[in-house]
Amino acid sequence: MRIAIDAMGGDNAPGAEVQGALEAAREWGIGITLVGDEAQIRAEAAKHGGLPPSVEVLHASEVITTHDEPTRAFRTKKDASMVVAARLVKEGQADALLTAGSTGALVVIGTLGIGRMKGIARPALGTIFPTLQDPVFVLDVGATVDCRPDWLVQFALMGDVYSREVLGLASPRISLLNNGVEAEKGNALTKATYPLLQAAPGIRFAGNIEARDVPFGVTDVVVADGFAGNVLLKMYEGVGLALMKGLKQALTASPVSSLGALLAKPALKGFAKKFDYTEYGGALLLGLKAPVVKCHGASDPKAIKSGIRVMKAALEGRVIDKLSAALEAYQSVHAEE
Amino acid sequence: MRIAIDAMGGDNAPGAEVQGALEAAREWGIGITLVGDEAQIRAEAAKHGGLPPSVEVLHASEVITTHDEPTRAFRTKKDASMVVAARLVKEGQADALLTAGSTGALVVIGTLGIGRMKGIARPALGTIFPTLQDPVFVLDVGATVDCRPDWLVQFALMGDVYSREVLGLASPRISLLNNGVEAEKGNALTKATYPLLQAAPGIRFAGNIEARDVPFGVTDVVVADGFAGNVLLKMYEGVGLALMKGLKQALTASPVSSLGALLAKPALKGFAKKFDYTEYGGALLLGLKAPVVKCHGASDPKAIKSGIRVMKAALEGRVIDKLSAALEAYQSVHAEE
Repeated sequence: MRIAIDAMGGDNAPGAEVQGALEAAREWGIGITLVGDEAQIRAEAAKHGGLPPSVEVLHASEVITTHDEPTRAFRTKKDASMVVAARLVKEGQADALLTAGSTGALVVIGTLGIGRMKGIARPALGTIFPTLQDPVFVLDVGATVDCRPDWLVQFALMGDVYSREVLGLASPRISLLNNGVEAEKGNALTKATYPLLQAAPGIRFAGNIEARDVPFGVTDVVVADGFAGNVLLKMYEGVGLALMKGLKQALTASPVSSLGALLAKPALKGFAKKFDYTEYGGALLLGLKAPVVKCHGASDPKAIKSGIRVMKAALEGRVIDKLSAALEAYQSVHAEE
Repeated sequence: MRIAIDAMGGDNAPGAEVQGALEAAREWGIGITLVGDEAQIRAEAAKHGGLPPSVEVLHASEVITTHDEPTRAFRTKKDASMVVAARLVKEGQADALLTAGSTGALVVIGTLGIGRMKGIARPALGTIFPTLQDPVFVLDVGATVDCRPDWLVQFALMGDVYSREVLGLASPRISLLNNGVEAEKGNALTKATYPLLQAAPGIRFAGNIEARDVPFGVTDVVVADGFAGNVLLKMYEGVGLALMKGLKQALTASPVSSLGALLAKPALKGFAKKFDYTEYGGALLLGLKAPVVKCHGASDPKAIKSGIRVMKAALEGRVIDKLSAALEAYQSVHAEE
């Protein structure tokens, strides 16, 4: 197992990437190729005990930023760390790609550089949402912002396979994000998708879900177009951060409430940890010929390491092979109709 | 000023509607017509000191439920409380309509029963989001789930007028909900809308906003299609409720944290109140010939009363007249182009 890591992608690059990769390599013995500015990478590695034998460095002279237009960046920045890392996967020198760089660039570079899986029209970014009960896997949270109904069915199939093979659920419930739970509710896209999901063989379609119910963990997989899914993800993050900030301000406003907060601190910390996205690390860009993990741009070393754990699970669960098989089975049933 | 209230709409109808209406009528001296089952309404009124002189009851024998298909319900349930209340407004016997019933039904009944304002293709549901700073007005949160770019521009104009005339902002910042802040980001709809908003005269377009930033109150008006806006609204509500529930569980898990929570209780309560949607009461269905307020289905009397306060402000601010004038000004500039 070898993972190509774009060491220059995130806000804290390459420090976070290098430290997270070294810890993962030491703990799990994974082969990692760090792609990016070699001098910077080696300097960061030196701060954390140097490079273990399973970690290699591949120099890349350019970096893709959020200001780069993705398709143009893929064509012109041929020595960008993300492009070079994708090439390693394409050429079989690595099994998977991890980056904390621009999502837009990753979707293009993943699709053009690594290639789509047979039977998948567009990739989807899937991520784990912590909830009051078990975590929920949500896709697409931002890869394909204009969707067709059959693409959402493909997302559902990918969510189903991922939940079974990596998250270990026997029979995951698949829900469609909608503006009402009734079958007839929705916009043109969700109305057209609903009957397709009902008819899709092999998945357990649990109907529509409203955003309000997502944080309560009443389903296992939420399917959405990349625009609505992105709103869902970012609102989760935004409300969480705003409430925590507001709570802190409220609790420290008086000496009595400050004392109360002090006594309740371990409980509050445990609670905050439960809803901490860095514990879950990374979104998976599904639908490509190899596993691709996108870590949050603000990732610290812990988040990078979590992303590598997600990647390891996807590789060990042979998600790509199983997904191919599921898509073939779906298409053969579909072709018979 | 006379408001027609659909007394049978919400989950707690007609109790919440009647009590909220009576309190509002006594406090602000507003004329109110309660529409619905007369016997039930009078029985509820008797529990709260009877009907003040400015409150009338109009019997309606039917009720529209969330299971009714809206257009069919409008055509066949002619004596439904929501339909009758809309007719009062249409015929000039009331100035405005308030309901806690089905949003889908209200959009159809408002549009067909009261009629659209000149220059507005589709109505938008606008509501106030509490934030860490000042509240933000968001529209559309669920009236028009499939939008065209020029409709979003109309929503922006309505949001601008509402913020200035009712919320009292001198120069409201208008932001477009998107999956990235850069001008070139977005799905087909937001990409096409961006330049139209940039070119729209008389509004202060502040560019794209990501959902993550909405709870921090960094803008005044957020414009979205009704599907994405609905996800934004319901995720706000869902995350808030889930975090509060999780926090409560965490704080009561041990005696020490329970004591801490007790000491911090006033601070926690003040904090919860700040984010309490019942304080803001009701969404406005904008774009019709009269103000229409939709209260949350789970509204209690306090939420109904808040909805009436929103309605009162819209009537006193002469929102409809000012909106008509703004739309005419926009169209005359547009026609010159």
